Amino acid sequence: MNWEGFPERVHIQEVVTRDGLQIEPRFLPTQEKIALIDALSLTGVSKIEVTSFVSPRAVPNLADAREVAGAIKRRPGVTYVALVPNLRGAQEALAANMDELNLVMSVSETHNLANMRMTPAQSLEAFRTIVDAARGTPAALNGSIATAFGCPFEGIQPEDKVLRLAEAYLALGLDSVTLADTTGMGNPRQVASLVGAFRRRFGSVPLTLHFHNTRGMGLANVLAALDAGADRFDASLGGLGGCPFAPGATGNISTEDLVHMLDEMGVATGVDLGRLIELARGLPALLGHDIPGQVAKAGRSGDLHPAPADIRLAAK
Amino acid sequence: MNWEGFPERVHIQEVVTRDGLQIEPRFLPTQEKIALIDALSLTGVSKIEVTSFVSPRAVPNLADAREVAGAIKRRPGVTYVALVPNLRGAQEALAANMDELNLVMSVSETHNLANMRMTPAQSLEAFRTIVDAARGTPAALNGSIATAFGCPFEGIQPEDKVLRLAEAYLALGLDSVTLADTTGMGNPRQVASLVGAFRRRFGSVPLTLHFHNTRGMGLANVLAALDAGADRFDASLGGLGGCPFAPGATGNISTEDLVHMLDEMGVATGVDLGRLIELARGLPALLGHDIPGQVAKAGRSGDLHPAPADIRLAAK
Repeated sequence: MNWEGFPERVHIQEVVTRDGLQIEPRFLPTQEKIALIDALSLTGVSKIEVTSFVSPRAVPNLADAREVAGAIKRRPGVTYVALVPNLRGAQEALAANMDELNLVMSVSETHNLANMRMTPAQSLEAFRTIVDAARGTPAALNGSIATAFGCPFEGIQPEDKVLRLAEAYLALGLDSVTLADTTGMGNPRQVASLVGAFRRRFGSVPLTLHFHNTRGMGLANVLAALDAGADRFDASLGGLGGCPFAPGATGNISTEDLVHMLDEMGVATGVDLGRLIELARGLPALLGHDIPGQVAKAGRSGDLHPAPADIRLAAK
Repeated sequence: MNWEGFPERVHIQEVVTRDGLQIEPRFLPTQEKIALIDALSLTGVSKIEVTSFVSPRAVPNLADAREVAGAIKRRPGVTYVALVPNLRGAQEALAANMDELNLVMSVSETHNLANMRMTPAQSLEAFRTIVDAARGTPAALNGSIATAFGCPFEGIQPEDKVLRLAEAYLALGLDSVTLADTTGMGNPRQVASLVGAFRRRFGSVPLTLHFHNTRGMGLANVLAALDAGADRFDASLGGLGGCPFAPGATGNISTEDLVHMLDEMGVATGVDLGRLIELARGLPALLGHDIPGQVAKAGRSGDLHPAPADIRLAAK
């Protein structure tokens, strides 16, 4: 491990109100979403994926995308992102003046058909129309590659197939790329290999890693990615999230667990972990259930406890 | 990360019936413990920490230590271990013909007083009497250093203090050392540093890493330890466990999640992951509650799912 070569600053990108909420059993009221995003804006995260401009039939929990995007307080220095599944969603996101549009398709044909209801060629064609629509606007365009570390239907995807899709994204004019482990299938060695290959092929093109903790490897994958030169990570407050089309999947990596690990290793994020933990601790009351994130329960490593009283006596 | 330098074979040491069960709210019947240990003996794990010969008042769940140790089927190639807190426990473990005695104290004075009710000097003196008692028997002696990566009362312990305690263990005649992250406070960078320092100071003295996943860093710590040359890990089926004196702590790292990650990275363990997962999936019925381990719920990365039927039609 090349600890000295770790990035000086890691960007934390919060996705809880999009990826985290989309599969929640209960609809989180619009005002609560807005309040949560406004609070997250004050934590020091680099990006917030606010919502998705998706059909309310497909994702009822995000049916209020327009209201949410229109009402949040935009804090300078934070990039506000919307996931867009198609041209119509992109038009809405542009109308809502989002800083960035996150376009997504799966490298796995089967997952793309299941998740996007499009063939990969249809998805790329939709991307092209979105690039055209965004031309001349200030919006940045990020392209996400879902199932980049494995598809629950097809299995591991060849590295070169993933890289060729990233190449197609960049050829279309997208600004940056996210490699997403949509259903938490990636392992650290695979992550290091793909991140290294991406860096060799695409140099300094901004790269985000989007990990899920489905099989407990989330933070180990972060460590491997850091070692391979990654410096941007998506994460979800409390570890909420998952993919509605990924059987058995649990949550995204938890933002507060991620920032805690980076803090403990001395890797700067600019994020106020105390505020994050406070917000994560408020989630069970908002959602009506426990959260997978662990630091919100256990506290930071540095949160010491008083020694038992009888011990203090015995030690005298 | 030096992937090529990873150990060719990693030893998996199962602690569920000791560390996993000691804080369970319900007593697991003796016959169930024996059946679980006998099943674990067939999975390919290198060691099984069978029980602890501890006062039944201190750990009621392990009050049947003698019956369990006497009734399990000893499988050649598996080392059967008992944790012993003092000379009396050691005498019982020797009488039970255990392959290995695991002696434990904390590097943190406060935690040792809270957990063992002894000062460090008293603990080391007890170790000496155990070494004397074991002399001439075939039992191996392992020394565990609890709170090696941080104490919930005192905080991070200086690396040199940990190494000096390991040195004292070896000077007393112990055969091997475990560095235990008793309450899950360690981070990957710290783990790499301490494992590296241990290796430099003590060469090939067998070293076990005992991690808890209290703050989500368990498998990331394993990765860092592997990279620093560790090849023996304690883990607990289902991720059961914790420390009764560590406020807020959740579980040990999950054996099946650990073996799954190693399998996925191509690191050999000799363990049959399928059997482990089956056993982990049986735990909720045995214990009456859900388990923290994730692979038992999500399945392996390679367990693929059939594509939705309507998608298979659309793809034609």
